[in-house]
Amino acid sequence: MTGRRVYLTDLPLEEALSHWITTLRSRGLLAPTPAESVGAAEACGRVTAEAICAVRSVPHYNAAGMDGIAVRAEDTFGASETTPILLPPDRFVTVNTGDAMPEGADAVVMVEEIRDVGGSVEILASAVPWQHVRSVGEDVIATELLLPSSHLIRSVDVGAMVAAGVAEVMVRRRPRVALIPTGDEVADATGPLRPGQVPEFNTAMLAAEATGWGGEARRHPIVPDDPAALAAAIDAATTPAIEASTAPATGCDLLVVNAGASAGERDHTALVFEKLGEVLVHGVAIRPGKPVILGIVRGRPAIGLPGYPVSAVLTFDLFARPVVYALLGIVPPERDRLSATLARKVHSTLGVDEFVRVTAGRVGGRMVVAPLGRGAGLVTSLVRADGMLVIPRTSEGMEAGEEVEIELRRPRSAIEAAVLVVGSHDVALDVLADFLHRADPGASLTSAHVGSLGGLLALGRGEAHMAGVHLLDEATGEYNVPYVRQYLPGRAVVLVTLAHREQGLMVQPGNPKRIRSIADLARSEVRFVNRQRGAGTRLLLDYEMRRCGLAPNQIHGYDREVYTHMATASAVASGAADAGLGILAAARAMGLEFVPVARERFDLAIPVEHMASLPVRRVLDVLDHGEFKAAVAALGGYDLSATGTRIQVQP
Amino acid sequence: MTGRRVYLTDLPLEEALSHWITTLRSRGLLAPTPAESVGAAEACGRVTAEAICAVRSVPHYNAAGMDGIAVRAEDTFGASETTPILLPPDRFVTVNTGDAMPEGADAVVMVEEIRDVGGSVEILASAVPWQHVRSVGEDVIATELLLPSSHLIRSVDVGAMVAAGVAEVMVRRRPRVALIPTGDEVADATGPLRPGQVPEFNTAMLAAEATGWGGEARRHPIVPDDPAALAAAIDAATTPAIEASTAPATGCDLLVVNAGASAGERDHTALVFEKLGEVLVHGVAIRPGKPVILGIVRGRPAIGLPGYPVSAVLTFDLFARPVVYALLGIVPPERDRLSATLARKVHSTLGVDEFVRVTAGRVGGRMVVAPLGRGAGLVTSLVRADGMLVIPRTSEGMEAGEEVEIELRRPRSAIEAAVLVVGSHDVALDVLADFLHRADPGASLTSAHVGSLGGLLALGRGEAHMAGVHLLDEATGEYNVPYVRQYLPGRAVVLVTLAHREQGLMVQPGNPKRIRSIADLARSEVRFVNRQRGAGTRLLLDYEMRRCGLAPNQIHGYDREVYTHMATASAVASGAADAGLGILAAARAMGLEFVPVARERFDLAIPVEHMASLPVRRVLDVLDHGEFKAAVAALGGYDLSATGTRIQVQP
Repeated sequence: MTGRRVYLTDLPLEEALSHWITTLRSRGLLAPTPAESVGAAEACGRVTAEAICAVRSVPHYNAAGMDGIAVRAEDTFGASETTPILLPPDRFVTVNTGDAMPEGADAVVMVEEIRDVGGSVEILASAVPWQHVRSVGEDVIATELLLPSSHLIRSVDVGAMVAAGVAEVMVRRRPRVALIPTGDEVADATGPLRPGQVPEFNTAMLAAEATGWGGEARRHPIVPDDPAALAAAIDAATTPAIEASTAPATGCDLLVVNAGASAGERDHTALVFEKLGEVLVHGVAIRPGKPVILGIVRGRPAIGLPGYPVSAVLTFDLFARPVVYALLGIVPPERDRLSATLARKVHSTLGVDEFVRVTAGRVGGRMVVAPLGRGAGLVTSLVRADGMLVIPRTSEGMEAGEEVEIELRRPRSAIEAAVLVVGSHDVALDVLADFLHRADPGASLTSAHVGSLGGLLALGRGEAHMAGVHLLDEATGEYNVPYVRQYLPGRAVVLVTLAHREQGLMVQPGNPKRIRSIADLARSEVRFVNRQRGAGTRLLLDYEMRRCGLAPNQIHGYDREVYTHMATASAVASGAADAGLGILAAARAMGLEFVPVARERFDLAIPVEHMASLPVRRVLDVLDHGEFKAAVAALGGYDLSATGTRIQVQP
Repeated sequence: MTGRRVYLTDLPLEEALSHWITTLRSRGLLAPTPAESVGAAEACGRVTAEAICAVRSVPHYNAAGMDGIAVRAEDTFGASETTPILLPPDRFVTVNTGDAMPEGADAVVMVEEIRDVGGSVEILASAVPWQHVRSVGEDVIATELLLPSSHLIRSVDVGAMVAAGVAEVMVRRRPRVALIPTGDEVADATGPLRPGQVPEFNTAMLAAEATGWGGEARRHPIVPDDPAALAAAIDAATTPAIEASTAPATGCDLLVVNAGASAGERDHTALVFEKLGEVLVHGVAIRPGKPVILGIVRGRPAIGLPGYPVSAVLTFDLFARPVVYALLGIVPPERDRLSATLARKVHSTLGVDEFVRVTAGRVGGRMVVAPLGRGAGLVTSLVRADGMLVIPRTSEGMEAGEEVEIELRRPRSAIEAAVLVVGSHDVALDVLADFLHRADPGASLTSAHVGSLGGLLALGRGEAHMAGVHLLDEATGEYNVPYVRQYLPGRAVVLVTLAHREQGLMVQPGNPKRIRSIADLARSEVRFVNRQRGAGTRLLLDYEMRRCGLAPNQIHGYDREVYTHMATASAVASGAADAGLGILAAARAMGLEFVPVARERFDLAIPVEHMASLPVRRVLDVLDHGEFKAAVAALGGYDLSATGTRIQVQP
């Protein structure tokens, strides 16, 4: 123990970042990595460690710039069409473009300006000295500066270096980023996992990220929750290699431990950092990512990342990225930003900068963003995110309709071309997404699963191009139309049939609880899993329950809500429930048995003004596609004979 | 010979591109490359060849979401602070966050809501079923779509795949781009070169470019100008590998020959393409790059690129880039674009789309672009280019002051932060550029060498932040001030001294022609090389000539103009001239002898309104830097005692 126990905690982000970078810089820990030599032709993407000067001039000789004859210009003075000058064979040399100028010659006369006279030539125009000659060094002169130091080498720079005779170039060694995963519960992601074990995937993600920055990532073996083991791993990661052939796990430039950053009894990272060095900051006022640790260990910048994947990626980006770029000696590239309208209200906590993942898309001429799930454990929210919205700590949230600026995580063109689908989830939508992207790699489908009613409300807010809906009207037995009239009053909407599909009860293989109908759900030993309010499947359940006279309190688990068919299937498959209502495709995907209950129409509700937009037309094209229909039919439980049928709902 | 000799020539760019892509697509030559398997953790930057689905749910077990005890929720119904429920040890299990939920338990009660009573616990609040439980598949459900096919895998996608148990992923094989350099004059760039030999650097540049797109580039050995040799090289490049272990030079997806694309007697590429396949297009109405050949050879897309580096890079980008991305199955990323004011008039030819390399920078709040040298042989113009301006074939050029849009080749932030220096060239400016970039990697110096007067005129047009000037007034013997008054009337300008420097005559080592003074230049055997009109060095020569009574026609080579000190030195070093006037540093760099003639002041002329701008302040900071002064002094011929001194020139 060094006795240094005073460190900063819960700092605002800018202060934490500034303290981190300033301290590292003042200790000399952000000095660029040592230079190493690489072949100029292989140097693209590397950073120059010194100014690169031309070794050879380009061109390196005086070259004919035209096809013709090389002459002494003074021999041609006075020549014209009317007074040609005759040059004997020893006063000129025939040259092609690029040929070296012969000794003594200082001009080229083009073939058009000479006349062949049996070995001699007649010159029809006077030549100016150095006409049609590319002089030595016209492009580059030997010793001239080609590239400054700390320059990120591009393909054209490679060309210039090789042209100018630079064979080897001194570049910054890639900064070595050691990634040490810790935790008794953490296990190799490639092996079988027991309940309670968490697959180790954070360092795979962080390694890919660091490599993209120009670093060299080193994923270390998993370390248990034991301070001595963590200290030993840090020792291994920070010991300089004795020879080049030593195992790669040595001598890092930046040390990253994931996780053990919290204050729990098994969270040793801060203690070990203190023992081996010092902690500068423990805890930053951001969400997610609050428990991050910033320190200096064994003379290296050291970061303790929180364990949840979203927190880990975010804090790695905030605190490791500037270090890696500083070690390379270049400025991190800016990320593209986008102004957009916030589709839904977002709550936030005062005093904390909140990083909210959002989807984005252009709907009816307006760029809209919608928040994704906020859980720090949701790695899929990173995959689905088009961008990041930062809600400053001075704010309690942002209102629907507010103009916001987001930092993009997908190319702008992809966002511009995306079709936004909200509402009910159906496996056929995943197939649609894949076919859409295969038909046109520039196109993509962004979907949010908020249930059928949620989808109609989102259309009302202008948040999406279309909503997936399957809403049974109890009074008329009609699907969707009455709900569109009720929830989108005054709007002209087209209902395009995606498919008819079977809904039924998913039960465990062999149907151990012998569930044959909705009525069986009332049996005391049957645990049910329900869909959320506003889901079409929930309405269908309520309709079927009323038909057999069941009340909600008679069904054990009626209040347990999940958000998708697959989540229902998963709850049954894991044994958390005995039955759930959903589609055959979901039951099949999870190896469950299926007891049919009803056949329903799943429509895409599309406000008429979006029908002609490119993203929507692309979707309609896929619906006409035979291969698409075959792929959905193969899932089972679908009837695609009406797919693409349109019903106009007038206001 | 196949008899197909009818192909399209001199097509407008869009037609050529459309014909090229449409034909390749209709022949099935743009189908994505075959799939290959890679480890998910190593898949970042690759493109999915199929939809990727989760193998395992995340979480894959029902997990405690809090530290506390796992219970059956129904055992707690009715519990409150006033009516606690006592649970015996066999009715609960202590759990930490992330632990697997025990069999039968369906809720977690937080530590805050229980009281320890000697092995049993008192429950102080009723638990809702599934409270504080992360259900199986809350993030990802096994079988669910993670990534569509044709998706460019990012770091977060790697995380999601590894988390969801995807160990291997099918991705598109990198498209193989064969690059065959041809030409009798072309020689290995790393070896010594004779006059007339051209170093082979184009394929190094093109390989780096193709690799950046996601392709696998294969540089072939240089092929002489012989149709049979070229045909043999194409055979080798297009023969599918029999085994994986075969040499890499086999089975390309895209064939690129550089050059032999013109119609000269040594240009065989089109003929060989015809013999082995077909030519679709020969010649496109663009400049540079007009002679490009587009064809299909041995069942592969084949491109014959022109030989000049700028032409080769441009046509490779126009015609190879869309092919490589199509073979990957993704859309090429857009390039950033920038609106700016054109600083100088640019001429163009009607009927030809002209691609003009430009520099760009923000001067006095306005983004300005200035054209670079247009020669297709100038590889440095690619290095120096901040962007590309396309002048459409319907236009004869663009006027100074016109608003133009350019496609960026450097990050926008780098352009925003660049300091633009025009005017006279001095080697100290190269040193300044390097120190500037070293002091702040975000800063850079863009310089254009147009002579001192040209620099003042550029300042007048608002084209640059500062001009390098050394202009001797014959009447007063004063440097720079009278010229600023004359050429920038009505402007307040600060003249900041860069350095005093020696000008002199550069002569060959040993001074074989015994040149001792300006007067010696009049001797008939002395060939001189001069600087361009408007250059301070040219004015100095004229001043010195008048002092000794020499007239221009007395000096052999007075009319031969080059644009920089280094070009002067290079002309002398190569023997093209016997003497030139310039600075000691240039003479030293080229190993020449130096005969001092005069000492002059080299200033940076800065309009007063730019003095406070960040790019200018950065330059002024470097001028104060001791290390900078030492580095310039080490070049020889400089006196830096007055460096940084300011003279205000009021209107």
